[in-house]
Amino acid sequence: MGPGPANAHPRVLRAMAADLLGQFDPEFTAYMEEVMALYRPIFGTTNRWTFLIDGTARAAIEASLVSLTRPGDRVLVINFGRFGLLLEEILTRIGAKISRLDIPWGEVAAHDQIAAAIDEAAPQVVATVHGDTSTTTAQPLAGLGALCRAAGAYSYVDATATLGGMPFYTDEWELDVVTCGLQKCLGGPAGSAPITISDRAAEAIFARRHIEKGLSQGEAGGPAPRIQSNYFDLAMIMDYWSEKRLNHHTEATSMLYAARECARLALEEGLEARWARHHRAGKAMVAGLRAMGLTVYGQDAYRMANVTGVFIPEHVDGEAVRRRMRTEFEIEIGGAFGPLTGKIWRIGAMGVNARTHKVLITLGALEAVLRAEGLAVPAGAAVDAARSTF
Amino acid sequence: MGPGPANAHPRVLRAMAADLLGQFDPEFTAYMEEVMALYRPIFGTTNRWTFLIDGTARAAIEASLVSLTRPGDRVLVINFGRFGLLLEEILTRIGAKISRLDIPWGEVAAHDQIAAAIDEAAPQVVATVHGDTSTTTAQPLAGLGALCRAAGAYSYVDATATLGGMPFYTDEWELDVVTCGLQKCLGGPAGSAPITISDRAAEAIFARRHIEKGLSQGEAGGPAPRIQSNYFDLAMIMDYWSEKRLNHHTEATSMLYAARECARLALEEGLEARWARHHRAGKAMVAGLRAMGLTVYGQDAYRMANVTGVFIPEHVDGEAVRRRMRTEFEIEIGGAFGPLTGKIWRIGAMGVNARTHKVLITLGALEAVLRAEGLAVPAGAAVDAARSTF
Repeated sequence: MGPGPANAHPRVLRAMAADLLGQFDPEFTAYMEEVMALYRPIFGTTNRWTFLIDGTARAAIEASLVSLTRPGDRVLVINFGRFGLLLEEILTRIGAKISRLDIPWGEVAAHDQIAAAIDEAAPQVVATVHGDTSTTTAQPLAGLGALCRAAGAYSYVDATATLGGMPFYTDEWELDVVTCGLQKCLGGPAGSAPITISDRAAEAIFARRHIEKGLSQGEAGGPAPRIQSNYFDLAMIMDYWSEKRLNHHTEATSMLYAARECARLALEEGLEARWARHHRAGKAMVAGLRAMGLTVYGQDAYRMANVTGVFIPEHVDGEAVRRRMRTEFEIEIGGAFGPLTGKIWRIGAMGVNARTHKVLITLGALEAVLRAEGLAVPAGAAVDAARSTF
Repeated sequence: MGPGPANAHPRVLRAMAADLLGQFDPEFTAYMEEVMALYRPIFGTTNRWTFLIDGTARAAIEASLVSLTRPGDRVLVINFGRFGLLLEEILTRIGAKISRLDIPWGEVAAHDQIAAAIDEAAPQVVATVHGDTSTTTAQPLAGLGALCRAAGAYSYVDATATLGGMPFYTDEWELDVVTCGLQKCLGGPAGSAPITISDRAAEAIFARRHIEKGLSQGEAGGPAPRIQSNYFDLAMIMDYWSEKRLNHHTEATSMLYAARECARLALEEGLEARWARHHRAGKAMVAGLRAMGLTVYGQDAYRMANVTGVFIPEHVDGEAVRRRMRTEFEIEIGGAFGPLTGKIWRIGAMGVNARTHKVLITLGALEAVLRAEGLAVPAGAAVDAARSTF
């Protein structure tokens, strides 16, 4: 019940125990095609280029930025937490010229602020995060893509923390590249990172296409400079996921099975139902924490459904509480990063954990632990308040 | 029975179905420590820095090269196949100044050739491959590290295709960075890539250390230029795998379970016994293929134990044979890359497949398929010849 990774669905765990297949076996390439089809609705897109990066969520972030951005390109980062800073950090290494729209932690950027920042920076790429777990805040994204396209920029959004748990509409929001991971609302393990790419972004990336010497039969590369990474060269990875099946890495078979099962579960449940389940769990968590007399961090209007920040009460040792939660109740809750270190806990309810009993048990446990740590907490109030929201 | 990925051991598959743990849970960090300890003997090293990269084997290659090499550094690539070309390809993107010692496919570099190439290139890094599956050839590595160290260079070796299947001695050979994957002789799925790093290489990498802004409490970075990738920044990944546990990516939990089980299986069997098992399987495969009247590719003295190249006989459609093997016998054998495309098949026997019955069944199937494709093959000769070698 931390900010993720969370528990995986038992069906996802079992899917990984399936026998391996050769990476060019027709049965396996059919699974690859199926995965592409399964993730399109999850991303809210009809993008042909919807597939997996073999690595954790961070791998897909880097693959997107290194493939979209050329050294010297102007990039605007809309930064409202640790993962905004991570985007900047990755872009610095790529050699981008970075402008930052800095939003105080716990707040979000207004449409007008973004428009003004784009006007000023004239970026080739705009990069941001949907839900930044470091601040438990979700940035509204409607209109972002249109602003970017009007300015001739590509947009990139890291949706790792929210996809499958909060409404997300890649096409409606006109976003160009969106990535995520399995270990949050999708209820799988870290290690495979779904990505979707608009046709216009794919065209720009293919302009940098290059075929490995050991595979090439003398084809010419694209006109634009080569992407600075081989492993993260999206043009090569798309060639691998296309009917060309040009060998790149060896697809992580078991993680593909996991990604496939995560998507099947999400679509079987229905995305609207899944978002509503996460919303209910988050609302109950907030109500329970407030009924205990704790102060919830951030603004209700922009709160992520799946992770709740709550201030550590004065005179309470936050780490002692986390240890007791883990040792006495086998429940993990999260600490925080950067300016929030030692100030808030982050309590998640996502994927298979975004369920009534998990929220109630966590609140009951936290109440007992806070009392054990010397805080006067109204007995039973948190669980009752949470129950009443369901 | 292709050149890999191969089938995984059932225990490895089952290990991945285990419940997830939080990445900083003491139970999980204890597994991380255990994985470090398990891979040291497998690499033949006492290197402290022995851990996993979250990606396929290629991810660990890129992490090594981008962390060891600064733009403009002189790098010598000892190239005898597709994966030598891959090293060059990755290094080009990093901005290294590359010299290549080119060895014809199917042959290996002699110690004197390497010494002369190092003298001429005065490299800061020497990079090569142990077994290059594209040519089924293994480069002898004894003495390589000493040559590099005498010349003030770091050595990098990609041992993806051989580790766990052929003798490998990182420390005795004085190698600095060695990487592999799970999907060949270690009998696991692609998606996690073990790496080992000598203290001297770790020191050079830590000189480029840099702490992410979102995590930093104001610490200074190392004196040397920042590594060009965040995901592949070995200094940050080592900080994550150290007692500091500085957050980087979210460790791919299920793949770590798989990597752990692969190593436990290898050490339970005993490395010498495992190498001998692969050697026996390879020898039987070669004998069987020859008894069928086929010509085995490459030189016996430098043949990889776990994959055998064999010329496609004249007037035989190599792809039709591979299709029949798969559809009629559910056995995959490999085609080839680059100059060997359409000329040889590559038949593997590695990990859980390096066993008597797998070799015999494959040879029997191939005999039947070749006959079905119109080639006169002596009935029963291949299996008998292979049996007699066991």
